[in-house]
Amino acid sequence: MSLMTIGTVAFDDIETPFGRAEKVVGGACTYISWAASYFIRDIKLVSIVGDDFPKSELQLMEERGVDLAGLEIVPDKKTFFWAGRYHQNMNQRDTLVTDLNVLADFDPVLPDSYRDCDYVMLGNLTPEIQLKVIRQLDRRPKIIALDTMNFWMDVAMDGLLEVLREVDLLTINDEEARQLSGEYSLIAAARKIFTMGPRFLVVKKGEHGALLFAADRVFYAPALPLTQVKDPTGAGDTFAGGFMGYLAKTDDTSFDNLKRAIIYGSAMASFCVEEFSLDRLKTLDETAIQHRVKQFADLVHFEL
Amino acid sequence: MSLMTIGTVAFDDIETPFGRAEKVVGGACTYISWAASYFIRDIKLVSIVGDDFPKSELQLMEERGVDLAGLEIVPDKKTFFWAGRYHQNMNQRDTLVTDLNVLADFDPVLPDSYRDCDYVMLGNLTPEIQLKVIRQLDRRPKIIALDTMNFWMDVAMDGLLEVLREVDLLTINDEEARQLSGEYSLIAAARKIFTMGPRFLVVKKGEHGALLFAADRVFYAPALPLTQVKDPTGAGDTFAGGFMGYLAKTDDTSFDNLKRAIIYGSAMASFCVEEFSLDRLKTLDETAIQHRVKQFADLVHFEL
Repeated sequence: MSLMTIGTVAFDDIETPFGRAEKVVGGACTYISWAASYFIRDIKLVSIVGDDFPKSELQLMEERGVDLAGLEIVPDKKTFFWAGRYHQNMNQRDTLVTDLNVLADFDPVLPDSYRDCDYVMLGNLTPEIQLKVIRQLDRRPKIIALDTMNFWMDVAMDGLLEVLREVDLLTINDEEARQLSGEYSLIAAARKIFTMGPRFLVVKKGEHGALLFAADRVFYAPALPLTQVKDPTGAGDTFAGGFMGYLAKTDDTSFDNLKRAIIYGSAMASFCVEEFSLDRLKTLDETAIQHRVKQFADLVHFEL
Repeated sequence: MSLMTIGTVAFDDIETPFGRAEKVVGGACTYISWAASYFIRDIKLVSIVGDDFPKSELQLMEERGVDLAGLEIVPDKKTFFWAGRYHQNMNQRDTLVTDLNVLADFDPVLPDSYRDCDYVMLGNLTPEIQLKVIRQLDRRPKIIALDTMNFWMDVAMDGLLEVLREVDLLTINDEEARQLSGEYSLIAAARKIFTMGPRFLVVKKGEHGALLFAADRVFYAPALPLTQVKDPTGAGDTFAGGFMGYLAKTDDTSFDNLKRAIIYGSAMASFCVEEFSLDRLKTLDETAIQHRVKQFADLVHFEL
């Protein structure tokens, strides 16, 4: 099965209590693609960079099965740049710099070969662009998943509600689920959000794990306590990439399989945070992933 | 098996985004005893109240198997009073009033019949009093568990470190585990805390569940997403009471049984928060508890 993903490809400056990294490769689409590449080879990327973005990084992605026909490289312009600093508790961060650069002109046109993809992961971007991508599809994918954030709820709620009507699955954090729904209880929030379009809700809680809601079911995936957490950047996107990559590989959208996909996504995110940028994600293999997934199973296992 | 518990018996004023309650029964020892009473009948309470505390509430506890020989009732004095207001997110609260009243003179002397108990739950109090209670025991219980909070780390760290040397199990929240150990990673924090005395660490994370650490093992118990959360007061103590009550009932301190105990404690806490004060805890039965525990099992179940 094929997975199309859209989102940023970026440079990041990152400062955490455990170190710093300057002008490293980041962006939602990058993390999603790398994570998904451990499950499938048919990944169609939609993004934009300047010609300052290293060709070697693009080549690495192509070698992992990422189709870059949908990547626009703008001559004489700079790649999107983000700088952030994490607080001591790592659950909060301040944005220090956001240079949109090429992203200001991002108006994606899907290559013909992209228009019949099976699974779609819309990374965090303006709802307007997310909707434009959906409208260019020739047929309905099996799952359209959308990631968004509180910023778009504040400045573009109408657009967000419009694109939500078109998606199957929404990934947001717990505070965003409460903001979007106006409900404190996450069960009530999920019910409200299901009336907006999605039939699945994934609530990302970082080091506290993730919740998967369907109409009448709920699943709690833990996060694995780690000895070393260096940099949370990209963890949510890596989670989404692992999740959607696993779904595309298994091509099974039953709730039981969505639960497995959440565990695989969580496992990929747990690797992501162990090093800065994509450093850990680039060095994984099947054995490491299976071992990590087994740790998740052991972590929550009990017998009554 | 017998369970001794020490802590406050109190009046609370509580304000949450979902309502308020005035001068309702509260206190760590009250919640611990009520929760444990669904598992065992031999509960030895150690606390202090004024003669304003309702006799009917004491009688209810006695009917549930709570021995009040260790409860000091001080004539012409008032019961400990606490007033607090929860923030919108329910994970944070402000203390509005703390009237120690009788608690200022609390210097517990254990009745002879208490001195050979099997399990001990030391509720959150000054480390000095917690230690005094341990020193009055005739023989080493199977598990001494201790609950504490950041306040004692700030003002009585030496005393806290002294009592920690005598206990088997510590329950604190994630920020407190980090403060006590100076480690960000909870795995590293647990390792450091094990050098201070305890051989088990339970990290309480409220709506994000709980973690159980032993020397080389870790277990993640989820929290159940609830439709209605009215008042988080006493949830941690209810958790501890259910946990220790289950341990005392089963009299098995293996890691596998500690995991089950954590699930039972989490189930009891999930009831506690559904209503103010002890309102929900007073109306439970075996069927409701077993049904809730089954929900916890379903919540995390997946097959690879």
